[in-house]
Amino acid sequence: MSSAASHAWSTSNPVFAAYVFYSSVLVLKLLFVVVLVARQRFSKKIFSNPEDLVDKKSKVVFGDADVERPRRAHLNDLENIPAFWITGLLYCLTNPSAYLAINLFRAFTFARIAHTFVYAVVPLPQPSRALSFAVGYAITIYMAVSTLLHFA
Amino acid sequence: MSSAASHAWSTSNPVFAAYVFYSSVLVLKLLFVVVLVARQRFSKKIFSNPEDLVDKKSKVVFGDADVERPRRAHLNDLENIPAFWITGLLYCLTNPSAYLAINLFRAFTFARIAHTFVYAVVPLPQPSRALSFAVGYAITIYMAVSTLLHFA
Amino acid sequence: MSSAASHAWSTSNPVFAAYVFYSSVLVLKLLFVVVLVARQRFSKKIFSNPEDLVDKKSKVVFGDADVERPRRAHLNDLENIPAFWITGLLYCLTNPSAYLAINLFRAFTFARIAHTFVYAVVPLPQPSRALSFAVGYAITIYMAVSTLLHFA
Repeated sequence: MSSAASHAWSTSNPVFAAYVFYSSVLVLKLLFVVVLVARQRFSKKIFSNPEDLVDKKSKVVFGDADVERPRRAHLNDLENIPAFWITGLLYCLTNPSAYLAINLFRAFTFARIAHTFVYAVVPLPQPSRALSFAVGYAITIYMAVSTLLHFA
Repeated sequence: MSSAASHAWSTSNPVFAAYVFYSSVLVLKLLFVVVLVARQRFSKKIFSNPEDLVDKKSKVVFGDADVERPRRAHLNDLENIPAFWITGLLYCLTNPSAYLAINLFRAFTFARIAHTFVYAVVPLPQPSRALSFAVGYAITIYMAVSTLLHFA
Repeated sequence: MSSAASHAWSTSNPVFAAYVFYSSVLVLKLLFVVVLVARQRFSKKIFSNPEDLVDKKSKVVFGDADVERPRRAHLNDLENIPAFWITGLLYCLTNPSAYLAINLFRAFTFARIAHTFVYAVVPLPQPSRALSFAVGYAITIYMAVSTLLHFA
């Protein structure tokens, strides 16, 4: 007698369990970029606020290339990962094939980890970043369109 | 015997079904701004990273007005749409009038589409952008306050 | 006969009810930073778009220190609060101790309010901002790791 939603959002549903798992991995991945930014700030002693200066060599500097690179990776995460969190959650309600859904969640997560790696850990030539971005982007669109078509 | 939450988050609840629909539209709307930014970057051959330069005419440039405009639209989306996703989801738990709730979701979605349009597709004079922002902002506050009052 | 998820996401579950409450507070807190940015823009008559100029004294200026400070507070919120919304929601599924979970939600919310206050309302010397950031960051990691371990 339960509703479809309560079934779909049960951790006994392997699709939803995979969603919970990969979404949590993405929380940690998103938070990890903070470490990449902080590492650059503290090694170059470059900060955004006067109150952050840790010693006399520290300076307030904006636009430093080594700090801006992980910051751009961070912003790109904010543009893509919250969209996945919500659309993945709603996509679970469409009763998708478990094989497809779990692999979409997995591919999105791997693509975003790869995106951070090639953008801000070991910068690699294109199209490495473009491809990792495009995989995540296409998966998000697929899930959102599937959800729209299912409930339209 | 089901809990209130499992009822409210059932796709047989028209409020929740509308939430799922409009949230998915907003996922696609948010992702669409990427196209607006990329269009400017490729037409002006202006990029943020040396590895992105597609030919000899391409340059690393920051602060270009035509690129920054859709980027500001994108950031404004990030400041408002994820807040809608969560507060809309939680607002469904307050057993709102279906008429009111569905129209709030619809108005928020239309307002954010209008915001992108007047900001970054065909820039229009104020107060077009201010109004489209304010509608979305007020709806989000209304839903968050309603949820707080319901569960306080 | 209900699923674990439908139980955990019931408003009769005190952990979930606290999640709903504090997440809604954080929606309002996030939206409040808009007021802090707008206050600086209108008092200094500094805007980002030509169509925003309200009178002849208004100018398009980027990088003004007084405007950028609340904007950085806003971006820091975007880097941390949506991650809390999703990981808090999923953490409710792990059947945590109500005492622990409710205090984690409460501490995260207070830490983010403190972060905004010491960053953009009354700028205070470090480590006030670093500490308020770190509390929220550590709680988010704890909830994400707990969720991963529970469902791995």
